[in-house]
Amino acid sequence: MEPKTKVHAEDGKQELTITREFDLPLELLFRAYIDPEIVEQWMSTKVLKLDNQKQGGYQFETTDPKGNKHGFSGTIHEFVPDQKITRTFEMENTGFGVQLEFLEFEALTDDTSKLSMHIVYRSVAQRDQYLQIGMSKGMNMAHNRLQEIVNKLK
Amino acid sequence: MEPKTKVHAEDGKQELTITREFDLPLELLFRAYIDPEIVEQWMSTKVLKLDNQKQGGYQFETTDPKGNKHGFSGTIHEFVPDQKITRTFEMENTGFGVQLEFLEFEALTDDTSKLSMHIVYRSVAQRDQYLQIGMSKGMNMAHNRLQEIVNKLK
Repeated sequence: MEPKTKVHAEDGKQELTITREFDLPLELLFRAYIDPEIVEQWMSTKVLKLDNQKQGGYQFETTDPKGNKHGFSGTIHEFVPDQKITRTFEMENTGFGVQLEFLEFEALTDDTSKLSMHIVYRSVAQRDQYLQIGMSKGMNMAHNRLQEIVNKLK
Repeated sequence: MEPKTKVHAEDGKQELTITREFDLPLELLFRAYIDPEIVEQWMSTKVLKLDNQKQGGYQFETTDPKGNKHGFSGTIHEFVPDQKITRTFEMENTGFGVQLEFLEFEALTDDTSKLSMHIVYRSVAQRDQYLQIGMSKGMNMAHNRLQEIVNKLK
């Protein structure tokens, strides 16, 4: 089955665009990105900090099957409820580098909505490294979980 | 006279690299980026906020000759004293967009130091727009002021 999360990567560019349509009202889709309890479920992570505001920041932590902890964190440059989040993102202590993410949320109908992400990387090599570790598949699976979990809140 | 601040822009890329060598010890060069009073002088701006730490942020404001106020702001993703600052930057309400900046500081000798900046833009067009408004010349002039002002602190 074709993944519902579409990742577009142009050769030689240091950016990616990602789109996903959800069978969720806009407000619920946006809530999945700002409510710590919901984030923990679909991202399979622990939320240590999630300060949803301009010049805020976030800190997540996952534990792998071997018990090792991995940190993910960033700052929130811009925050407009139900519309957009501009933030930095980094997988800490990995050498993957810092990236800049533009998330845009829009209603398609009363019951459906769309997420558009534009990610800018420090280099083409860093972007390609993310693609090589299976980012597209991982993001599609996470978005499937988001759809399933948030669907229960309707 | 050739500008001391070197801006390197490769065609068709959404990034810039900038280097400048200063006749200043590393500690004084770094201080010029974190001490509000010194920032105000060489950047010709008012510092409303400058929270120099990981997940911190800053807010500057300049007043143009007509009395109009212009905001410049961003988040600080990473902060390592005397070594590096990774931050976002935006000229507010201009449509110029948000950019990601990697600033690296290094000592060349006891009395000289080097700043290396890598700026990543949302698009090639946004980068080119900055070049068109004379960013290179403006940055060189600002760095000249930095050299002159901080020199008095030696």
